[in-house]
Amino acid sequence: MTRPETTRLVMKFGGTSMGDLERIRRAARIVAAEAAKGKKIAVVVSAMAGKTNELVAWTDGAGPAAAGLPLSDDEYDVVVASGEQVTSGLLALTLRNMGLDARSWMGWQIPILTDDAHGRARIEDVPGDVLGAAVDSGQIAVVPGFQGVTRDGRITTLGRGGSDTSAVAVAAALGAPCDIYTDVDGVYTTDPRIESRARRLEKVSYEEMLEMASLGAKVLQTRSVELAMAKQVPVRVLSSFIEPDENGNLPENAGTLICDEDEIVEKRIVSGVTMSRDEARITLLGLADRTDAPADVFTRLAEANVNVDMIVQSQARTEGAVNLTFTTGRRDAQRAAEMMTAAKAELGFEELRIDADVAKISVIGVGMRSHAGVAQTMFRALADKGVKFQAISTSEIKISVLIEDAYSELAVRALHSAYGLDAL
Amino acid sequence: MTRPETTRLVMKFGGTSMGDLERIRRAARIVAAEAAKGKKIAVVVSAMAGKTNELVAWTDGAGPAAAGLPLSDDEYDVVVASGEQVTSGLLALTLRNMGLDARSWMGWQIPILTDDAHGRARIEDVPGDVLGAAVDSGQIAVVPGFQGVTRDGRITTLGRGGSDTSAVAVAAALGAPCDIYTDVDGVYTTDPRIESRARRLEKVSYEEMLEMASLGAKVLQTRSVELAMAKQVPVRVLSSFIEPDENGNLPENAGTLICDEDEIVEKRIVSGVTMSRDEARITLLGLADRTDAPADVFTRLAEANVNVDMIVQSQARTEGAVNLTFTTGRRDAQRAAEMMTAAKAELGFEELRIDADVAKISVIGVGMRSHAGVAQTMFRALADKGVKFQAISTSEIKISVLIEDAYSELAVRALHSAYGLDAL
Repeated sequence: MTRPETTRLVMKFGGTSMGDLERIRRAARIVAAEAAKGKKIAVVVSAMAGKTNELVAWTDGAGPAAAGLPLSDDEYDVVVASGEQVTSGLLALTLRNMGLDARSWMGWQIPILTDDAHGRARIEDVPGDVLGAAVDSGQIAVVPGFQGVTRDGRITTLGRGGSDTSAVAVAAALGAPCDIYTDVDGVYTTDPRIESRARRLEKVSYEEMLEMASLGAKVLQTRSVELAMAKQVPVRVLSSFIEPDENGNLPENAGTLICDEDEIVEKRIVSGVTMSRDEARITLLGLADRTDAPADVFTRLAEANVNVDMIVQSQARTEGAVNLTFTTGRRDAQRAAEMMTAAKAELGFEELRIDADVAKISVIGVGMRSHAGVAQTMFRALADKGVKFQAISTSEIKISVLIEDAYSELAVRALHSAYGLDAL
Repeated sequence: MTRPETTRLVMKFGGTSMGDLERIRRAARIVAAEAAKGKKIAVVVSAMAGKTNELVAWTDGAGPAAAGLPLSDDEYDVVVASGEQVTSGLLALTLRNMGLDARSWMGWQIPILTDDAHGRARIEDVPGDVLGAAVDSGQIAVVPGFQGVTRDGRITTLGRGGSDTSAVAVAAALGAPCDIYTDVDGVYTTDPRIESRARRLEKVSYEEMLEMASLGAKVLQTRSVELAMAKQVPVRVLSSFIEPDENGNLPENAGTLICDEDEIVEKRIVSGVTMSRDEARITLLGLADRTDAPADVFTRLAEANVNVDMIVQSQARTEGAVNLTFTTGRRDAQRAAEMMTAAKAELGFEELRIDADVAKISVIGVGMRSHAGVAQTMFRALADKGVKFQAISTSEIKISVLIEDAYSELAVRALHSAYGLDAL
């Protein structure tokens, strides 16, 4: 499918950019600069920063449904979706105040159709005809993010961070690219707070971005990247703190474009180095060396909805026994350990050790697919700094190692340099 | 049309009753007490007290539409209607927390259809079938007041105090009576802050209530009473500070029932005495005694949307001239005076005087229709206290006099006593 030439554009502003009337005016000036270029615009907005937390606290205070009644996520959605309704109306008012034609479009007016999984709904369909005709007429459409509507006409919300997904879904419906304005000015080779020589990437592929997002680089919600990849929506991440110049022009080539791998001419082997401290390591020492013992362990964890990431099995000191090490999310670790301990006799292990003092360091790059030696570079760089690794996992475009937390920042800097990512 | 027997009930809670989670729980306990009696209930709610003001201030801060663009009342409505959306969701959650089945119904879900006069829309139709089936199934319907939707699917609001009108419209659609819970415990013979012997009326007719509301007794919005009269909806005004007793029962015969005149067996000649300080008096001295001079004055005022209430014409000192006195709302008085002064030569008067130091005292009662001597009682009571009146106006069920403001409370007490309204 070839995409027709379009002057349509979807822009998205987050809660910080909608935090008060002055910030809403700044966002409106950015929208006006794009409109002046002839763009046909839909703007997706979050609630004012902090407002969603206030609304959620009220729903918590109202309490859960009494025993015997269904969950109350539908009414949670009614309350919480109101935050984006407010900012979409305010941005439309602000744009009109600047002489631009604009109107708000609620989730139920477009409609942004979702399933009925209230509180974490998934978008099923966004018809683009009516909204597309509206923006093509020159009217700026302002769309509250985060919210949708079921086919029965009830309000839904998409879960935290859902406004990014709303923006990509609207962009897909309009056949438009999507500019996401946020409080960072793009996607970096690593966290600039750890490595000052981190560089902004001009382009990054959907797959790389997905790995970075899932590893804790919180620029975009994972689902929004998945959707952008599935619908082939070019997404640009850029700073909402830019101002149009005296001629009303925005900076060229700002931010980072997230796009198809094929559109990235100069492919790096490694595009980024990420660090996650959201891990914990559990080791079962002296586990009976039955072939079904690991399966037994991981089946129990899966049934309890504990996600396991890395797995290492090694020979134990005890004859006929192994040591089984695995990592889980830090929040799940205690629960996982208690579950293992309760089943100690059935599973047949000698001792359980839990260690949250670990970090996962990953290098990510689509270039790995066609290059050998990527892992060696990693191991050598870590060895040169005396960093030992406790576990390894790999995917097609990622290598992760688990190390002692104290070495994590050192390791990030060593790898950033080893893969030639340092800014000159 | 005879109304079928119904166990349906519409209850309405204002912004004070929705002010925080504890107050919402108190309202929920009152709803639960009615539900326990087998009532099939729709609850109409206002926004949290103060919230509408905050939302309105934001829309003001976003500014008016630039020149050449249409008014922005549609987006004002999008922002402001969110306040009731929040409380309707929170009340539904709270009711579920108490073990009751409940769900919210937005204005666009029912739908509460209005015209497209954004910011002051009028309800055109409320279909009762779907909502009626929902409440008859035992599910409490929670409806945000103040909001509706146009036939084009845009959000509207009804103007300040519109939630009363929403409640009456929903009651009419369901063929149900309407209980309005507010921060007073009923309609009184006069303002209890002026006359401590004021009595709560058990019943008052729609027409009397309309006169009281339009004269500034701010218990109910005037439009809600008009609608209740037109649709023959019995409306009870009662205090939201009541609590069900240990058996879960609410007090019997609380509040004031607003109903058809025919349902009031014991008719009083006068039901209430009201006072309004929202008046100003303008006098044109030495107006040329042409037959069309008053018409000229009042046509100009009408064209400027200035409502004129009382009118008195008297002989002037100057030969062939009259003095013309009229009252307007205090907010319009300055504008009216400036307009008259600008047209001084054309209208042909000698001097203009404006006096805001006046009050309008009214006695209201459907019994006046069949009783003579009501006015004499009024004039004698005022004369006995040495209160002079500057103008008089009458309707079928009301006599109003304009007096010097300093005497207003004295006059209210004198009339309350003269018509036998004092509590024993």
